Amino acid sequence: MLSFESIQADVEKWLAELDYGKEPKNLYEPIRYAMSLGGKRLRPTLCLATCALFKDDYNQAKWPALALEIFHNFTLLHDDVMDKATIRRGKPTVASKYGLNTAILSGDAMLIEAYRLLQQTDSPSFSLITDAFNQVAREVCEGQQLDMDFETREDVTAAEYLEMIRLKTAVLLATSIKMGALAGGATAQETQSLYEYGILIGLAFQLQDDMLDSFGNPETFGKAIGGDIMDNKKTYLLIKAYEGADAQQRRELQAWMSNPEAVREEKVEAVKAIFQVSGAKDATQAKIEELFAQAMSKLREMEIPAEGKRYFIDYANTLFKRDK
Amino acid sequence: MLSFESIQADVEKWLAELDYGKEPKNLYEPIRYAMSLGGKRLRPTLCLATCALFKDDYNQAKWPALALEIFHNFTLLHDDVMDKATIRRGKPTVASKYGLNTAILSGDAMLIEAYRLLQQTDSPSFSLITDAFNQVAREVCEGQQLDMDFETREDVTAAEYLEMIRLKTAVLLATSIKMGALAGGATAQETQSLYEYGILIGLAFQLQDDMLDSFGNPETFGKAIGGDIMDNKKTYLLIKAYEGADAQQRRELQAWMSNPEAVREEKVEAVKAIFQVSGAKDATQAKIEELFAQAMSKLREMEIPAEGKRYFIDYANTLFKRDK
Repeated sequence: MLSFESIQADVEKWLAELDYGKEPKNLYEPIRYAMSLGGKRLRPTLCLATCALFKDDYNQAKWPALALEIFHNFTLLHDDVMDKATIRRGKPTVASKYGLNTAILSGDAMLIEAYRLLQQTDSPSFSLITDAFNQVAREVCEGQQLDMDFETREDVTAAEYLEMIRLKTAVLLATSIKMGALAGGATAQETQSLYEYGILIGLAFQLQDDMLDSFGNPETFGKAIGGDIMDNKKTYLLIKAYEGADAQQRRELQAWMSNPEAVREEKVEAVKAIFQVSGAKDATQAKIEELFAQAMSKLREMEIPAEGKRYFIDYANTLFKRDK
Repeated sequence: MLSFESIQADVEKWLAELDYGKEPKNLYEPIRYAMSLGGKRLRPTLCLATCALFKDDYNQAKWPALALEIFHNFTLLHDDVMDKATIRRGKPTVASKYGLNTAILSGDAMLIEAYRLLQQTDSPSFSLITDAFNQVAREVCEGQQLDMDFETREDVTAAEYLEMIRLKTAVLLATSIKMGALAGGATAQETQSLYEYGILIGLAFQLQDDMLDSFGNPETFGKAIGGDIMDNKKTYLLIKAYEGADAQQRRELQAWMSNPEAVREEKVEAVKAIFQVSGAKDATQAKIEELFAQAMSKLREMEIPAEGKRYFIDYANTLFKRDK
């Protein structure tokens, strides 16, 4: 079976072969820049790997895989505009390098390019693949809108938060797997089970990302610890902290969140302490374990060869950098 | 043959039947608002009318027509964001009514919706229709980028301006006709000729729009006269004015354009006077006539029934509100 690394290398090679366009330079140069920022190419790799589970090669999933990667980078580009982010993967965002209008328009052109690539798909499942893409594209927008809505709401529940990250993050990972399964000729049932596995792993992945944002190792996390805390982002951790806090802790939490002058280090340390004593950290870790276990059990139920199951288990373990 | 009014009525009925989505409200409500701002529904009407030239009915062009209208409104929405426009068709733009981020994201969702509708097309020409759509979507972005590039350039030529409006405006009108022809089963040659007719009419249409912006009747134009002049927009009129002006007129033009404090009425009147004495107004009118004549001659060469030709001639005359 092909290693993730070798599939990733194919993705990079195919991406390098794409010709986004030349003129006007101010439209296409930012696209090349955005695509050059790299990342793990997780979505196309998942798509191709899943296709290969059901077929000897993964050529039929090439265009869906590339469409997914361009689409994902389009969402990052426009999200960065909406979040006024200046840094992405250690480099200036498209908006801060080329300006706001260019970032909006280049993002639009990337979304169009994703559809153009998807269109090249030559598969008996073409129609199901494009339906899946249309649906996920819409859902990711819904997730982003919910995320923005939550910024001005004080009553976001844990269930609402999970629904938001399902739409904003998990469905694209799950659909990457689904599109690969469809291209590979999986049955409807296999496709559905793999999709559900993808949702569960995607949710767990996002919750772990939230945990790392507060409790990660600054040396390996890649960006400053405590960004969510400074933004008062209504993560699972914060929602659970409010749920579990006693009156004194809740007052303290509210004081930190309503103080725009708070010193970063002090606020981050104090809120992290509340995340711990209120039981929010443990509750989040427990939720991650629960989702992970559900994902594994979803796999076990599936009637695919043991080798294939091993593949998805290894993948999940890699995502979570576990040893077992 | 069906009247434009009756086709337009079908477009409105079909648009009203679309279900963009419900939750999150902040994503879908702005889409409904944007689509409710109306307009002449020119692109879907052209698409359907062209289909009906080759077929008994235009049902096969329904989804392409709706996709074109949503796409067009998506471009207006994002253009308004980039231009910081506050008013569209006499009402607040989506950005000024709902905020910048909502406008960006709702626009993205509209582009996705356009593709989803296009996907419903059930036609032997499905693949050609979607290719045409992908290409025009890309070209419209290129046109918008050129338009933005021109803002900071002083050496834009008339040829470059015509290429910009070809991409920004004419190709979408021409592709609306092309997609209708494809859905109706026109030959490749018929499709191509109609497309070229569409480009010529589209260019003439945009130049006329530029003329109206400076020389229109304030009572019927619908917005304030002189917007392009106040924005120093490098239209065909302005480019021709620089070409035709003598040294004195050129200095005067430059003085008005480099004076951000200029009183609106004074600047508009003075620049209009230069447009006239420099011969720019006449040159623009001559270019409109030339493009119009080329469009008519393109039609005359075509081997389609006289009734069909009449249709496109009437359409062109309507666009230009001519009596003949």
